[in-house]
Formats: sequence, C-alpha cells, structure tokens
Amino acid sequence: MRVIRVRHRGSVFFAALQDDGVVCLNRQLGYEAPIPLSEITLLPVVAPSKVVCVGLNYRGHAGELGMDVPDEPVFFLKAPTAIIGTGEPIVLPPAVGRVDYEGELALVVGKQCRNITPEQAREHIFGFTCANDVTARDIQKRDGLFGRCKGYDTFCPVGPWIETALEDPGNLTLRTVVNGEVRQQGNTADMLVHPFELLSSISRVMTLLPGDLVLTGTPEGIGPIHAGDEVRVEIDEVGLLTNPVIPADEDATGDTPLQ
Amino acid sequence: MRVIRVRHRGSVFFAALQDDGVVCLNRQLGYEAPIPLSEITLLPVVAPSKVVCVGLNYRGHAGELGMDVPDEPVFFLKAPTAIIGTGEPIVLPPAVGRVDYEGELALVVGKQCRNITPEQAREHIFGFTCANDVTARDIQKRDGLFGRCKGYDTFCPVGPWIETALEDPGNLTLRTVVNGEVRQQGNTADMLVHPFELLSSISRVMTLLPGDLVLTGTPEGIGPIHAGDEVRVEIDEVGLLTNPVIPADEDATGDTPLQ
Repeated sequence: MRVIRVRHRGSVFFAALQDDGVVCLNRQLGYEAPIPLSEITLLPVVAPSKVVCVGLNYRGHAGELGMDVPDEPVFFLKAPTAIIGTGEPIVLPPAVGRVDYEGELALVVGKQCRNITPEQAREHIFGFTCANDVTARDIQKRDGLFGRCKGYDTFCPVGPWIETALEDPGNLTLRTVVNGEVRQQGNTADMLVHPFELLSSISRVMTLLPGDLVLTGTPEGIGPIHAGDEVRVEIDEVGLLTNPVIPADEDATGDTPLQ
Repeated sequence: MRVIRVRHRGSVFFAALQDDGVVCLNRQLGYEAPIPLSEITLLPVVAPSKVVCVGLNYRGHAGELGMDVPDEPVFFLKAPTAIIGTGEPIVLPPAVGRVDYEGELALVVGKQCRNITPEQAREHIFGFTCANDVTARDIQKRDGLFGRCKGYDTFCPVGPWIETALEDPGNLTLRTVVNGEVRQQGNTADMLVHPFELLSSISRVMTLLPGDLVLTGTPEGIGPIHAGDEVRVEIDEVGLLTNPVIPADEDATGDTPLQ
C-alpha cells in the first residue's frame, strides 16, 4: 500500500493511493467512496515529533568526508519544521555557501517503542519513504554541531508516499539525480548498520512515537545544489521524491501556516 | 503569572497557579471556578515540537570544556521525548559512564515566528522556565554528534512553571544545586549572546512554533550526577526545578503512555 497524507475539505488524514483516487484510512471521518485526486491537497507524508538521522552509515560516504567509520551508529536530530513534501521547493538560505543533497532511505515509525531488538523493528515500522537530508556544508564545517546546517526550513524533503508493503529494506538501489544526471548511486545492502539494527539502537536511547522519521544515512556522491536545479531521490520499490531548488526571498517572515 | 500544564478529568490544559488552586486558561473547556491542586495531575510545562539548545553561551563553560568561544551561536536539538517535569526522576541509562547536569534558563515560544529581530523576540516569547540539559559526557566525547548524549529519555527536565511576567531575562542569577550543595552559580548577564538575540538567530534558520523550547546555555561548573542524587536548578524570578536521579530499570520497554 502507498500511503499519503492529505487535506480534504478541512480534514487532514492518511489515505491509500489507488488508481481511481485515494481512500481515507481514518474510518471515524466516515468516507466510504474513494476521493478523486483533483479534490485533495497533498501534504508532506509525515508530521513527526522528531526526525532522527544517522551520521555515517555507508563506508563510501565516510571516506569522501575523510572520516573514520564509527564503531556504532552516531546520530543527530533534524528539525521537524524542515519537512516538505514532493514537489515543494528547497529554499537556499541567503549567504550560507554550499548546500548539498543527501539522498536517503527513511523509515516511518508505526508504533510507540523503546528498547526493541532488531527482530522487533519491522513490526514497529509503518513503512518506508525517500528523504533528502539537505545540508549547508560550509555551515556544517564551521559549526561542528548540526542544529543549523541540517535544520533550515525546507531542508528535509520527504515522500512521495509511505510504502508499507516492503518487508526488508536491506537490498534496495538508491539514486540521487540532479537535472537528470545521476549523482549518487548506492545500495542499502552497503549500509554499515541495517535499518532494523539502527531502529533498535535509537530505541535504546529515546522513545520512538508513531510518525517519527528515521533517516538511514547517505551513500557516497554528495554534491552541491543551486537555484534552478531539480533534485530527485529514487529508491527501488519505495518511490521517487522530486524537489526544485529556489533562492530565499530575504524579506519572507514565514507566517505561512504549517501543515 | 505562573503557568503550568495539567491533566484534570481527562483534559490536558494550561492553567495559572493561584493561592487557592489553578485556573484553566482554555476558556473553551468551560471551567469557571479555580480547581484545587489536589484534583490535578501536574504535567511537564511544555510539549514542544522541538527543543533548540545553544552550544556554548557562557565564556566560563567554553573554558572548562577547553573550547574556543564561537563567533555566533552554534546550536543543536534535543529530543522532545526527553522532557520530564519537576519531581520526575532523571533515569541514568545503563553503561554510559559519566552523566552531567547543566542548569539553564529556557524560553517558551508563544507565537509562530521566522526571521524576527532581537527587538521582536519578547513579544514572541510566552515565558521563561528552568531546564536541565542533562548530558552523557563520555558518550558526547565519543560520538561528536549530540543526538544520543543529549537525547536519552528523561534528559530534559523542565519547570516547575512558565513565568510570563518577566520582561527581560538578561540579569538573573542561576544556580545548580546537587544534594543541597551549590555546583553552578552564574548570571544570565554573562551570556555571550542575550536570549533575545539567540531567539532571533534561531528564527533565521527555522520556523519556531508555539510551545517550542529554547535552552540558552549553561554557565561553568558542570559536573556529574549519580543515582540517589537530587538536582535542583534555581533561577531568580523564574523558579526552582527539582529532580531525583535514579538508575535505569534495564528490563523496561517504555510502553508508558507519554503525556
């Protein structure tokens, strides 16, 4: 099943994508028939309480950053306000220097959990989606900490849907494509830590809540994006996330309601 | 006004503390009379969408960590699931080595904002509270990134209330007291970046939402806590946050519902 998050006549709900429209997954809302795609507004697929990201999870990416591979997963948090959906623009902040794409497989947590084993991970995962861990690379080097460089509004594109049917995400080809040119090509089989081990590891630190997002790391091939580019993260059996890149409107005060 | 967050007969709401009980601040719930303290359950004062923390904001603390003072505020995120209220225990995770208190002044965001100036900061702040940025120090050194060392469940005590009357938090004495002994004593006047500048700086990166929490940094004097300790963060004109420290129950699976 491919699950999206939509607004329809003032209600926000998860829905299953079908050929003839979408089917509301919240029975309490009383929808019986599918809703035509033309009647809904697509929202980012999740509105998580937190976005947990793993620092280095592919040997090749550690190498290109000149870093040693960690003994165990090292992670950081991305601001949930950075999330945008497929088709929405990545906004380059003013005066931050180089900004990079980082294509990643993301897990969406389905059930609250803590201290779970890798064997218990799949039953706590609702599904999988594509993510782009957009990073202000110069700021990252300057700050050392990741709050700013990874936390700008629009720096967490996620989507286009949550694929729930996939059982094991351990052998999927992932590509990041900029303006039609393949820039990253990796396979989740090359991860240092399998997504299920990763979820178990995070759950030994913090309680995971339904909707929480876990980004599983990026393969080698990171590189910059510029205004006017189109970035696509494609993961076999999962989906294809596309976002244009635009410059900041420096006068914006950002009072647009969040979704 | 001192504002707390409470549960009363299944409803969760903000309430003002008064001599004869608490007054519900959500008019839609239809409370008219004050509610006796004995009838409510105290919850952590906020349930934020994110907790933004500044890395080094007192010269003395940068010195004791052997780090240079940054040119501009450097920040990181703490997991919202780490939040506990006053009186609730800080749980020491198994096998993490040294765990430290870090007493801090915290701001609670009152209105959604982005790209605000320091002069606009106060009107976007609902009030002030005490926080303890509990940190697994050995893990911090090992990981480099702060997701784990700062993100364990219970590592973000906050409270006991939100003080809304304070206009400028720029000259407040802050103490951290362990088992009755003063361990940290600082003044917010010694911050490298005033809380209003800090909020402005964060708002140039990420949209802040009502309830979001900003921890403004810790003065020098950090040190370890152990099972059996009682840690208190006291800030003049703000409040007094007290938490016992207990060891982890290694069998816990953490299925307790969050509040």
